Amino acid sequence: MHLIIANKLYSSWSMRPWLVLRALDFEFTETVIPLRREDTKARISEYSPSGKVPVLLDGDIVVWDSLAIISHLADRFPEKPIWPKDPAARARAKSISAEMHSGFQALRQACPMNLGKRYAPRDLGEGVAADVARIEMIFRDTRAKFGDSGPFLFGAFSAADAMYAPVLSRFETYAIPVKPEARAYMDSVFAHPAFARWRREALSEEWTIPDFELGYEVAADLRAGVA
Amino acid sequence: MHLIIANKLYSSWSMRPWLVLRALDFEFTETVIPLRREDTKARISEYSPSGKVPVLLDGDIVVWDSLAIISHLADRFPEKPIWPKDPAARARAKSISAEMHSGFQALRQACPMNLGKRYAPRDLGEGVAADVARIEMIFRDTRAKFGDSGPFLFGAFSAADAMYAPVLSRFETYAIPVKPEARAYMDSVFAHPAFARWRREALSEEWTIPDFELGYEVAADLRAGVA
Repeated sequence: MHLIIANKLYSSWSMRPWLVLRALDFEFTETVIPLRREDTKARISEYSPSGKVPVLLDGDIVVWDSLAIISHLADRFPEKPIWPKDPAARARAKSISAEMHSGFQALRQACPMNLGKRYAPRDLGEGVAADVARIEMIFRDTRAKFGDSGPFLFGAFSAADAMYAPVLSRFETYAIPVKPEARAYMDSVFAHPAFARWRREALSEEWTIPDFELGYEVAADLRAGVA
Repeated sequence: MHLIIANKLYSSWSMRPWLVLRALDFEFTETVIPLRREDTKARISEYSPSGKVPVLLDGDIVVWDSLAIISHLADRFPEKPIWPKDPAARARAKSISAEMHSGFQALRQACPMNLGKRYAPRDLGEGVAADVARIEMIFRDTRAKFGDSGPFLFGAFSAADAMYAPVLSRFETYAIPVKPEARAYMDSVFAHPAFARWRREALSEEWTIPDFELGYEVAADLRAGVA
């Protein structure tokens, strides 16, 4: 299998299927196509019928979109614990993953993913606050009902954690205050070897895209010396 | 199974899982909760952890979001032809469904679903034009590669058709010009008994929501006498 993604520093959609593949020990190769360069469009179009990344080539099969790639992997590799096995947990995992996939526009717009920065706390507005409150409720409810057997949403790491991982990084990047239980869950995801590897590789990228580097006050630059 | 949805006239998210259930002859009951009324929020919250519809109750299992409900049904009823069987077709069906689920914001924002109106043609802007062009390309490519055996995207009616059905109704409502091949596909969906039934039931609803009734010039009011 071959996964085509964009900048690890910025591409939240790319992170999701990559985390699933890496965390669940799939064998795959990857190509990173940096965004906003002269040849970006042409390079992505070589692989992707939608002109977007991520896209997965699985032999002759082409599948694009983070959630579709995850769903495809679950079809093709039913032995891999991509979704929880218990039907109620599985339904919940799919529900919250789909809610992430189509929702939380305010948060996504105000807080683009940027693993290289820590911004000083600031008021991000009511829309973002409502999104954060809903996400914290999702974590709390899901962990309470289904998370007994481990530190992730459904105990063991699953696709649902991968779907929410970029948002966790935004909480950190934008210094968004969260309750201790959400903080503990975030730390578990950040400590997962797959997330840690993605972050390390993101920080070593040499590309910087001004549009994703907001004019907010910077509290820490984790890429000092890179750009 | 019990599906909870909103106004059939306006709720594009509700239409999708309902069409899958109805077109594939599932047995289910339904509750329609009209939007924007005093008790709307309380009534939806009785059923839905996300506070949104659609939500499906499958015994003890609760699943929300149109795409998650479809994915849940595919898990629980593998004998139903929700997705195409061929792996490449199935991957394509999931890709375009996910693309619909998270995309086409410009079209969705400028053209809310309203099965009761036909508006006069007007310039809907570049964003809408780009969305329409991409959707037409999806129809053309998918039908060419996978649609030989019937009039729908993958020949027989599948979840991918249900995911795109609301957008087809928007093409009609807003008099958006489409190429003849897309028109033929639209007509096939509109003629499907499940879609025809949804439309009939939508037109007989007695609720009208001003926010969804745009100030555009009306070419035809299909609900004359209702509101």
